[in-house]
Amino acid sequence: MKVLVLGAGQLARMMALAGAPLNISISAYDVNSDNIVHPLTQQLLGNGLAQALVDADVVTAEFEHIPLPVLAQCQQSGKFLPGAQAIQVGGDRRLEKSLLQTAGVATSAFTVINNETDFNAAIAQLGLPLVFKSALAGYDGKGQWRLKDAAAAPALWQELAAFLAADPQQAIVAEQFIRFDREVSLVGARNRHGEIKVYPLTENHHVNGVLSVSLARPLDTALQQQAEQMFTAVAEQLNYVGVLAIEFFDVQGKLLVNELAPRVHNSGHWTQQGADCCQFANHLRAVCGLPLGSTALIRPTLMVNILGEDQVPNSILELPALGLHWYGKTKRAGRKMGHINLSANSTAELKARFAQLIDLLPAATFPELEQMLQQL
Amino acid sequence: MKVLVLGAGQLARMMALAGAPLNISISAYDVNSDNIVHPLTQQLLGNGLAQALVDADVVTAEFEHIPLPVLAQCQQSGKFLPGAQAIQVGGDRRLEKSLLQTAGVATSAFTVINNETDFNAAIAQLGLPLVFKSALAGYDGKGQWRLKDAAAAPALWQELAAFLAADPQQAIVAEQFIRFDREVSLVGARNRHGEIKVYPLTENHHVNGVLSVSLARPLDTALQQQAEQMFTAVAEQLNYVGVLAIEFFDVQGKLLVNELAPRVHNSGHWTQQGADCCQFANHLRAVCGLPLGSTALIRPTLMVNILGEDQVPNSILELPALGLHWYGKTKRAGRKMGHINLSANSTAELKARFAQLIDLLPAATFPELEQMLQQL
Repeated sequence: MKVLVLGAGQLARMMALAGAPLNISISAYDVNSDNIVHPLTQQLLGNGLAQALVDADVVTAEFEHIPLPVLAQCQQSGKFLPGAQAIQVGGDRRLEKSLLQTAGVATSAFTVINNETDFNAAIAQLGLPLVFKSALAGYDGKGQWRLKDAAAAPALWQELAAFLAADPQQAIVAEQFIRFDREVSLVGARNRHGEIKVYPLTENHHVNGVLSVSLARPLDTALQQQAEQMFTAVAEQLNYVGVLAIEFFDVQGKLLVNELAPRVHNSGHWTQQGADCCQFANHLRAVCGLPLGSTALIRPTLMVNILGEDQVPNSILELPALGLHWYGKTKRAGRKMGHINLSANSTAELKARFAQLIDLLPAATFPELEQMLQQL
Repeated sequence: MKVLVLGAGQLARMMALAGAPLNISISAYDVNSDNIVHPLTQQLLGNGLAQALVDADVVTAEFEHIPLPVLAQCQQSGKFLPGAQAIQVGGDRRLEKSLLQTAGVATSAFTVINNETDFNAAIAQLGLPLVFKSALAGYDGKGQWRLKDAAAAPALWQELAAFLAADPQQAIVAEQFIRFDREVSLVGARNRHGEIKVYPLTENHHVNGVLSVSLARPLDTALQQQAEQMFTAVAEQLNYVGVLAIEFFDVQGKLLVNELAPRVHNSGHWTQQGADCCQFANHLRAVCGLPLGSTALIRPTLMVNILGEDQVPNSILELPALGLHWYGKTKRAGRKMGHINLSANSTAELKARFAQLIDLLPAATFPELEQMLQQL
């Protein structure tokens, strides 16, 4: 089976590693260079999307910020899963918010802002504090603004107006600011036959808007059920096929959807050693028409992102149940370079191992891990 | 880190999959074609061994039947681990038997046969029944003969004489036939610093001399200790670096070494989901000077070889804790095409899952699994 992935980053790379044992070979379309490459070796496999679409059995994506003409071309192949609509929904906050409303899934109140009138209406209608998010190309905390105080509104509008003027396709979504207790996410898969399997909810800790640590441990069943119902509503609304990730705010046990990612997700990397079938294998199983693998938690597991660094002390490899995953990328400040998975037989043991890991890692590269440890 | 593997088969392929997350890139030397290829994509990376030896940080091997000039060339690079001696010992039964004697490790009594006088002396000295094994290029039950009855000796000698005449390097090792209760193997790693970690003993079931099923479950501690002592003696005698596999006969709780494999081993494939750090990752960690990963059994796991078949029913993917591993090879009768790993939380649960798996697999392709199930 040949699968073409839109995007040639670490998610396509990890799909290639998970696909090889299933005799699924992965090629990746680099949207910027228009090249087809092998996502592990970066070997050039061809140029241009047209022939690659002919050669592939299935087409999928590792990211949602894909030019519309590319999406249309893929959709026309008849092989694209989860398909252009789902990718567009994930890449455009206006569509995402509408979809959540249509699916009857709880999310923060919002309005769309295209001009100053919309901006003032948002403040009047939703009240302060507000969060403003770019409709397109926003991720990892980029393209976000906050407004707590009405006095700061005029200055913020100047900034937003300049942002909107730079791109006629762009818009701003204003959202009520949510005072959440924590951020959790649900990663799950739906296959061609409508079968759905979801992993346990993951607790996520961000630093400067970028995911730092994800933790999967046995959680409250009611919360899990709530998340699963919302996952099912969204996946069925989109007739979704593949792995889908949903980020939630947990507000005193009530979940509100923050955003969707129509793809494998950073908060699901722990599944590589905390579940029988990882998210990469399950995504491929789903889009290739195979049965989904088990998503049950086999042991408490956490993941730590490695940002902007291409070295960690070798001594961490001495820790039991530790997996180190580099992405083979060139070092750049803040860049997602790799991750560490850590498992244990109980949450208490995991906490102890996490403390050992933190002692071995340089604090400058991994800020706030100590603080996260205290929250476990 | 760049590792060159002698041999471009499934073991090099699985090393590539295990190495990528550690940013270890693997190239493979195909001894037959003299090409350097990527073991996953089979992409041509170069021709000839000389330049590949210069480019690599470390050189290792996935099989032991390597021409002596190639071994010498690799040894000269100063990068070859476990090194020419260990590979030769694994590939020549005369050297292997001598090594075991030197290391003080129990093995069946043997003599070396180069001519008819040796043949008759072997019968007189060791008694019947005897097993005769080719000194070179014997694996998966090939190059083996049995003699139970003295009357059959002259005919057998004719056959052995013809075999010896065909290759002046060849010899025969005569061994006392061992009435064993079962075959077990120990896979373990020794790194550059002399650190040793071994996986739990694996019980192996062969069909026509080829491994069919390996089972790792909690076993008798005394047997494990015995195996570990023998592993340590052999590994230290060879100053071994890398993963080493030892196959034993279990004779009423006393282990006799049957043979060594100076490499990752088919009976260690279960470590991909039954241990924290699989044999492929541990081999790379060892030869690259990294700390070894945990070899503890995390849950009972068995492996079933897929021989001569390139399809299995998709329905097996519905079983929990089942991993399907294809090698991307062209189908040929009896060829090792892939394997299935199956895990469970207890031996009883594993037995039940194994029964489910057997029901789903075609009996013609997987003979004797039912019989093996009864022995669990």
